[in-house]
Amino acid sequence: MASAPNDDPHIGDLSEGAVLRAILARTAPASHTLLGPGDDAAVLATPSGAVVASADTLVEGPDFRLAWSSGYDLGWKAAAVNLSDIAAMGAVPTALLVSLAVPADTRLSFIEAMADGIRECCAQLAPGCSVVGGDLTVSELLLIAVTALGDLGGRVAVTRSGARAGDIVALAGELGVAAAGLGLLFGRFRRGAVPVPADRASLDPLQQRALDRQLRPEPPLRLGPLAADAGATAMMDVSDGLALDASRLADASDVTIDFSGSALDALAFGGDRGRALGGGEDHGLLAAFPSSDLPAGFTRIGTVIPRSGAPVLLDGDPVTETGWDPYRDWDHAR
Amino acid sequence: MASAPNDDPHIGDLSEGAVLRAILARTAPASHTLLGPGDDAAVLATPSGAVVASADTLVEGPDFRLAWSSGYDLGWKAAAVNLSDIAAMGAVPTALLVSLAVPADTRLSFIEAMADGIRECCAQLAPGCSVVGGDLTVSELLLIAVTALGDLGGRVAVTRSGARAGDIVALAGELGVAAAGLGLLFGRFRRGAVPVPADRASLDPLQQRALDRQLRPEPPLRLGPLAADAGATAMMDVSDGLALDASRLADASDVTIDFSGSALDALAFGGDRGRALGGGEDHGLLAAFPSSDLPAGFTRIGTVIPRSGAPVLLDGDPVTETGWDPYRDWDHAR
Repeated sequence: MASAPNDDPHIGDLSEGAVLRAILARTAPASHTLLGPGDDAAVLATPSGAVVASADTLVEGPDFRLAWSSGYDLGWKAAAVNLSDIAAMGAVPTALLVSLAVPADTRLSFIEAMADGIRECCAQLAPGCSVVGGDLTVSELLLIAVTALGDLGGRVAVTRSGARAGDIVALAGELGVAAAGLGLLFGRFRRGAVPVPADRASLDPLQQRALDRQLRPEPPLRLGPLAADAGATAMMDVSDGLALDASRLADASDVTIDFSGSALDALAFGGDRGRALGGGEDHGLLAAFPSSDLPAGFTRIGTVIPRSGAPVLLDGDPVTETGWDPYRDWDHAR
Repeated sequence: MASAPNDDPHIGDLSEGAVLRAILARTAPASHTLLGPGDDAAVLATPSGAVVASADTLVEGPDFRLAWSSGYDLGWKAAAVNLSDIAAMGAVPTALLVSLAVPADTRLSFIEAMADGIRECCAQLAPGCSVVGGDLTVSELLLIAVTALGDLGGRVAVTRSGARAGDIVALAGELGVAAAGLGLLFGRFRRGAVPVPADRASLDPLQQRALDRQLRPEPPLRLGPLAADAGATAMMDVSDGLALDASRLADASDVTIDFSGSALDALAFGGDRGRALGGGEDHGLLAAFPSSDLPAGFTRIGTVIPRSGAPVLLDGDPVTETGWDPYRDWDHAR
């Protein structure tokens, strides 16, 4: 490891408290916070009498490579993917708890950049949401486990199971852009099996956008509560690929979803329909609405029909895309 | 790894969904759950208009060794240490979110045993609390990141910062027993530097109890809300050793805590005052009360006095115990 100035110590040479204080100094107060970090637990106001909670973890190896993701990128992505699950219930994110496991030789500046990424992601995508707690442990590999909390503001949570035949299927967000970015990383920024830093300047503007969305996704969080207000019957975050996630929504609702190929083509990044159906990590919102009067930001991509054999059809034919299982796909790509 | 029957597959050969379903089939519903696991997020009732939240992680290596801890032990401990942080605010635990990172060759039965340990810990120590969400990733080492949520039931959260000169300092729970158990593991159940399974039958009953409390702590969770009701001015979970944690409470409250040596000796496991002051992981509740009329389960161990130079005294003299920093202590013991 390259030498670093003394004011950028290794995490292993600091106490947990010192590192947590350095992180928390970089985070903004959350608007729902009654008691912030620093005690045994935080206390959040839940004026609507309910709290929405979800957890998701990024692990070095299966979920990211340090050659490709900066500390800022990782903080941003860990926040974004968790905030997206809250929005997908129709709720507004209110707080994050962040558990970090980091190698002892990690520089403090890297952890500070992660804190910056988390803060900026919240500020841009979920204003008022911030880190209220967490912990730090030393580990042989880097891992970021986040729990996100949210408030429904009196809305009824929009689950995956409420879609009904006749509903319109709509999407907010992008399709295939994050997978395109992943394809660039694996295709262009490896030396043999070893990831090397991405030379962003070597990419054209569309490729740069794909790379950026892979590293720092921008899920349309504000549209989750709007969809709930507009009467969405079912909604979910598209994290593992449209075909796979739609099949989950269809199974939970006991319906079949019939996608329009032309509608997907119009939304698909680079016009790649296969990647639009199979590519993961876009974190768009897939929702069903009882009327074709869709809220702004949602585009019609299909129709809910009575359950037939297959959960998901494309212009009436079964979809064979298996989607994105980060578990297997990425590991096999190592 | 020993061969196992086909009905005990490796985690790496299963989908995340299949493993999560197997885990969730073993957990009980939480009494505050409006929407349980299986959607993008869970929804919990918070009738008092606030939610208490805390996160803590156990990492293989710094926090546990698989030769010493069973899956059941790990699940129990991961739950217990998190539930304790909620109780230390004066709240009742309502839900856990559990993020697991596990090696691909982990057996499903090990994960199921972890789920059993979490469920039984909740059932015995925090009835009504259960797992409402979480996620699973493949990792090169085993890690359990838990977020605990709780409800204050209208109580004001008891922080670390409210202790006042003249208050009585009291403890609920044990002192030094978990450290005694850790000492047994490091002293008797290693071959060189390599941990070997603990032969419990080779230990006397007191030693067995120390081992059990190290592996499966039993924090006095019900006494947290009772202490709040009794007017506790400050409270915290003693996880890193009494001396270190008391210094944190004293610093936060800008007071000094003067412990009674004879009171500590009476509570110290095996009569070991040094271990009682320095040993971690007992997860007792340290609290300050404005009156000597203490709630049942709390024992007087000292007095709050105006801030002098040192945060913590023992019979009037500064305490030199540095306490337990799992970060440093355990790593150096590798």
